[in-house]
Amino acid sequence: MVGAADFVGRDVISIKDFTRDEIDYILRIAGEMAPLAKSGSDILRGRIMATLFFEPSTRTRLSFEAAMYKLGGSVIGFSEPEISSVKKGESLVDTVRVVEKYADVIVLRHPSEGAARFAAEYARAPVINAGSGAEEHPTQALLDLYTILKEKGRIDGLTVALMGDLRYGRTVHSLAYALSLYKVRLFLVSPDLLKMRREVLEDIKNRIEVYEYSSIEEVLPEVDVLYVTRIQKERFPDLAEYAKVRGSYKVDLNVLRRARSDLIILHPLPRVDEIAVEVDSTPFARYFQQVENGLVTRMALLALILGAIKE
Amino acid sequence: MVGAADFVGRDVISIKDFTRDEIDYILRIAGEMAPLAKSGSDILRGRIMATLFFEPSTRTRLSFEAAMYKLGGSVIGFSEPEISSVKKGESLVDTVRVVEKYADVIVLRHPSEGAARFAAEYARAPVINAGSGAEEHPTQALLDLYTILKEKGRIDGLTVALMGDLRYGRTVHSLAYALSLYKVRLFLVSPDLLKMRREVLEDIKNRIEVYEYSSIEEVLPEVDVLYVTRIQKERFPDLAEYAKVRGSYKVDLNVLRRARSDLIILHPLPRVDEIAVEVDSTPFARYFQQVENGLVTRMALLALILGAIKE
Amino acid sequence: MVGAADFVGRDVISIKDFTRDEIDYILRIAGEMAPLAKSGSDILRGRIMATLFFEPSTRTRLSFEAAMYKLGGSVIGFSEPEISSVKKGESLVDTVRVVEKYADVIVLRHPSEGAARFAAEYARAPVINAGSGAEEHPTQALLDLYTILKEKGRIDGLTVALMGDLRYGRTVHSLAYALSLYKVRLFLVSPDLLKMRREVLEDIKNRIEVYEYSSIEEVLPEVDVLYVTRIQKERFPDLAEYAKVRGSYKVDLNVLRRARSDLIILHPLPRVDEIAVEVDSTPFARYFQQVENGLVTRMALLALILGAIKE
Repeated sequence: MVGAADFVGRDVISIKDFTRDEIDYILRIAGEMAPLAKSGSDILRGRIMATLFFEPSTRTRLSFEAAMYKLGGSVIGFSEPEISSVKKGESLVDTVRVVEKYADVIVLRHPSEGAARFAAEYARAPVINAGSGAEEHPTQALLDLYTILKEKGRIDGLTVALMGDLRYGRTVHSLAYALSLYKVRLFLVSPDLLKMRREVLEDIKNRIEVYEYSSIEEVLPEVDVLYVTRIQKERFPDLAEYAKVRGSYKVDLNVLRRARSDLIILHPLPRVDEIAVEVDSTPFARYFQQVENGLVTRMALLALILGAIKE
Repeated sequence: MVGAADFVGRDVISIKDFTRDEIDYILRIAGEMAPLAKSGSDILRGRIMATLFFEPSTRTRLSFEAAMYKLGGSVIGFSEPEISSVKKGESLVDTVRVVEKYADVIVLRHPSEGAARFAAEYARAPVINAGSGAEEHPTQALLDLYTILKEKGRIDGLTVALMGDLRYGRTVHSLAYALSLYKVRLFLVSPDLLKMRREVLEDIKNRIEVYEYSSIEEVLPEVDVLYVTRIQKERFPDLAEYAKVRGSYKVDLNVLRRARSDLIILHPLPRVDEIAVEVDSTPFARYFQQVENGLVTRMALLALILGAIKE
Repeated sequence: MVGAADFVGRDVISIKDFTRDEIDYILRIAGEMAPLAKSGSDILRGRIMATLFFEPSTRTRLSFEAAMYKLGGSVIGFSEPEISSVKKGESLVDTVRVVEKYADVIVLRHPSEGAARFAAEYARAPVINAGSGAEEHPTQALLDLYTILKEKGRIDGLTVALMGDLRYGRTVHSLAYALSLYKVRLFLVSPDLLKMRREVLEDIKNRIEVYEYSSIEEVLPEVDVLYVTRIQKERFPDLAEYAKVRGSYKVDLNVLRRARSDLIILHPLPRVDEIAVEVDSTPFARYFQQVENGLVTRMALLALILGAIKE
């Protein structure tokens, strides 16, 4: 049976490193963190987290930092690689081996796929992947699962639609895999150019039902959870193509007329205009709760990895 | 009667949102913060302040951060908008609605007038305006008042001269308004190009006596508090004009021969050469005490807004 | 006799400001910090350290910050001068006199020689030099000494070789001086262009035996401690010259065949390729322990300067 001891000192590189039982355990601990997020606590007093962000990400960085502070710990790090030792030509491995002398846990964001795994191999301190390349963003997947569980009461039995850029979005790769550990039906809704990568698809379709669509309209009435991601202009060789696609992947009140009354909409944020502001005040919108859930999920991970949970 | 309960959860956007009684109350609490600034305290332990600086300001940012730390709290945030989500096109409203999930209070600095008010309307967390556009800098006005009160023993009955750039300096707009709540005589001393904006003038001259001058020399003997601000070269279409003006708005020992012996000189800092370094060692100079007073004033605001003061 | 009281409120500008007895005392306190580096402590709770880095240095900054956090204190500061008040034309003296109102101790890094000394003269708060110009890096010298002492059990009686850029490296200037207070034999190994500055040499050769070499090969068998530093391409007017030199100052397994079995190798890091990665797993390599020792040495300095050590 899974217990707190299974997480002490552990790296969090890929959502694939966790079993469903382990994920369920993390989500349970996340639930227990909610009161500490309000009151603060000192279960990590004297412990230091290093945030090494070789690529900017205000949201993820602030979320991890707030999580550490709410547990009573401290934070060191950098958010702009240009001003770090890296500029002097230091290797990632050396950076990690230096920083682990100062910190009890390392949170790493890096533009290269595989960077987090590589760093974790050399570091004795546990490494948490806060996004590497287009590949993985495991803590986002965990907070997405936690949000679905909290808002819908369950994950099994739901129909989840992932919509937008499914090709380059690291968030949706981790999430699709995570969802495949549950009994969900998965709809993948994207323009042709931005379809889910074949290798991700192969990986999950043995375990769950997966359907691909190019438009949300027809299938929306069946959807319990609509997960929207940003479509970036830069992905399109042709601006006319982009303009056409953009309109079809925008969620507004008109689109939502066909939605179930208990549909929930998630988004990893930041959004640009994939979700119209008018949706924010509907009961569908749960993307700001999702942010709050990110805090408690990361509190749970930090507390578990640093051995502060006893049960 | 004004009490601590009036401040819990409150935004600090404009000095105009406060009555004289409320300001007096804040200044009293600031006085009580001085011993905590020495010893530290834990009255905000477990609470998080976010500093969202969309425009750099080392001084103001460090002052708020030190205030939060001296009260036992923690700080997250950014000081360079280029590396934040904003770069990805996120709206100010979304940024604020995300960050309030991580933080108990938001300190915002923004180049646009009205940005702080706008953010406060959407945020549930209290927002403190740390400078927005050329308009307002309410916490600077509070620390200026606190410094006058502390150094002179009173505010009522004083003659205060504001000198330098009165047109673009947000500090002097907030301060002029704040002073107009007291029984002061106000001298506005500036080059023609940089005179106090009409709307600010209209606003205050119903309540107090205001006189405009283009030189400090003639009126200095009547002044109790000389508040100097920076004159920026960029404001002048003609460099010759700037060169002429610059000399007349520099305070040095020669100018000060005509000063009252108990004159105090303030400056929001950073200074370039508006005040000669030779003035620093005279008893007139109080601009570094002003910095220290900024710390306790901001401690008072944070403690009040976050409900840590009970009286 | 040297005691904790001798360090309270003291600046750390140059290693030359300390006697051997004082250095020995600091190294002893550093040893006592090791358990606190593991567990954390609260001996500096409520105290604030400001890190003013006018020149980037991730490693040194993170080391000081971790030291302060492990002692229970807080940290404010900046690591990019462009976004600070300095950009508005503020003088270093004004910056320091403002920041000391917020902080109990100032850690300063600056590109100009003499900047730290100059700042310390104007500041009432103690100033720690975290590297200024090509001149001095006293805390690095202290951690280097501590590492030698810890790894070899003594400093007196050892033969120490400093190798690489001895001309521009501030680390080796401070270290050479510090070593000259002990009974060591010093080998200086560098290309002609990068020989130790005459004034440093004059200063130390009255006290200890110093020998200069252009290659490590011949003398390696006599060396107890090999201290390697980076050779920067920019120092050479001629790239061919650089290419030639670079190969001769690289430490790899082949070079080390002639080393004593108990040789230890140090490096201030970051390294580029002066030490081959294959050396990392040999018992010679102590440069990552050196990093760890930097943490406890800086904890000792902060605790002493801020009066938290009683003995």
